[in-house]
Amino acid sequence: MPNPTAAILVIGNEVLSGRIADVNVNYICRRCADVGLNVAEVRMVRDDEGAIVAAVNTLRTSHTYVFTTGGIGPTHDDITIHSMAKAFGVAVIRNIEVEQKLHAHYGSRLTPAALRMADYPAGARIVPHGESFAPSCLLENVAILAGQPRVMQLMFEATLPLLQTGTPLHTRQLDVWGMESQLAEQLGRIQTRFAAVEIGSYPYRVEGRAGTALVCRGLAADDVEAAFTAINHLVTEQGLEVRG
Amino acid sequence: MPNPTAAILVIGNEVLSGRIADVNVNYICRRCADVGLNVAEVRMVRDDEGAIVAAVNTLRTSHTYVFTTGGIGPTHDDITIHSMAKAFGVAVIRNIEVEQKLHAHYGSRLTPAALRMADYPAGARIVPHGESFAPSCLLENVAILAGQPRVMQLMFEATLPLLQTGTPLHTRQLDVWGMESQLAEQLGRIQTRFAAVEIGSYPYRVEGRAGTALVCRGLAADDVEAAFTAINHLVTEQGLEVRG
Repeated sequence: MPNPTAAILVIGNEVLSGRIADVNVNYICRRCADVGLNVAEVRMVRDDEGAIVAAVNTLRTSHTYVFTTGGIGPTHDDITIHSMAKAFGVAVIRNIEVEQKLHAHYGSRLTPAALRMADYPAGARIVPHGESFAPSCLLENVAILAGQPRVMQLMFEATLPLLQTGTPLHTRQLDVWGMESQLAEQLGRIQTRFAAVEIGSYPYRVEGRAGTALVCRGLAADDVEAAFTAINHLVTEQGLEVRG
Repeated sequence: MPNPTAAILVIGNEVLSGRIADVNVNYICRRCADVGLNVAEVRMVRDDEGAIVAAVNTLRTSHTYVFTTGGIGPTHDDITIHSMAKAFGVAVIRNIEVEQKLHAHYGSRLTPAALRMADYPAGARIVPHGESFAPSCLLENVAILAGQPRVMQLMFEATLPLLQTGTPLHTRQLDVWGMESQLAEQLGRIQTRFAAVEIGSYPYRVEGRAGTALVCRGLAADDVEAAFTAINHLVTEQGLEVRG
C-alpha cells in the first residue's frame, strides 16, 4: 500500500519578501519522512485570503494531509483562521475553553484582539500541546500550525499522533569524490533495473573539490539494499574514492 | 505602476524528503526585493514530470517571471530541461557552442551523459555566467537555474540584468520587547489608515523574552514613513521598550 501523502502550505509575506528564511518546511519534511508520510508538494503564499483559500482547497483534495504554517495570532495580518473557514465554507467560532485559558494567562492585560486566538473554524478539533494557552487545530485533514518555529514544532508533534502515518522509507546514502557525470549512464541503468527504488544523485563541492551524494530510498529494504550494492560496485568499477 | 511579480519553482526529491534544506528560496526572495520584483508564490515539487509541467504552466501564465531551481545535470533524475520543453511544447535541442565548451572542459572524460548538459528547450536564450561550461537559460519568462546554491546564485545574477525589474519597496522595521497582542488593535487601525503600506507584525522569542518585529513596506516612501511614525507613537503610548 502506498504511503499517505502530505502537502505544506507556508503563509506569510515575511518569507516571500525575504525578510526571514523559512525553516519549518525542512522540519516538517524530515519528521514526515520519519513516519512514512510522503511530502509531495510545498506552496508558499502571501497573507492574501484569495491565495490562501485557493491553495488550501487544491492541496486538501489532492493529499491525505495538509500542514499550514503562519498567520496565526492576534494582529490584522493573521488571517489564516478566517481563510481556512472560508475555504471549508464554515463559520469562525470562539472556543470557550481556550478563551478561559487566555483569561487565565493574560488576566487584566487581555485585549479583544488577543481573544481572537480563541477563534477557530467551526468543526475544527482543538489540539493542545501542553505548553501554550493557544492550542492549534485540525480541520478535517488540514493541520493549522503557527509560524514561529519553536511553537510550530510543539504543535506539529502534538498533531502527529492523530494522523494515519505510513512506512518510513528505507534509505541508504554513499558519498563519493568525483563528478556525477562519471557515473551518470550506468546509474541510469541501475535506476531502470530497480524501478521501485528512488535513486538520487546530488553533486556538491567541499573545499573546492567535487563530491556526489548517491541516495537510494524505497519501501522495500531488500530492493534498496540490492540497488545500493549495485551502486557500490559501480563506484568501485569507476575507481571513485568514497568520502570517509 | 505595480511591480512585476515572480514565482519560484523548486524541483527536487531531496528537498521534499527533508534530506537537504532549501536555501535558494530565501536568496531569490531577498534579491528580488532588492530590485522591485514581488515574489508572489513559491512551489516545491518532486522530480516528477507531470508535477513540474503542471506547476510551471500555472506559474508562468500568472506571473511576470518564474525562477526554477534544481534538476539540471547529467543524471537520470535531472528532468527539468525535458519537463520545461514539454510544458512549452517545444523540442529539446543540443547547443553546439555549449557542446564545444563541454568538450574543452572534460576532454577524453566526456561521456554521452555529460553531453546532456548541452541540451536546452528550443527557443531558450543561453545565459552564460562566466564561471562554468554549463550555462543556464531563459525560456520566454522562465529562468531555469541549478539547485546547488553557489551555482544557482551565479546563474541568478547573470539572469537578473535581462529582466524587467521594478521599484524596490521602501521598508522600515522597529523591534520592541513585548507581545504583539498589546498592540494588535491599534496596529489594525493604523493598517486601515495606511492601506498602501503593508504592515507586518512578527512575534519571536529571544532568551525566553517575547519580542515583536513591526515592519512597514510600500512603494511610496512618504506613506511608509508616515505609517512608521504612527507605529512609533503607538509603541511609546503603550510603554513598550524598543530593542536597542
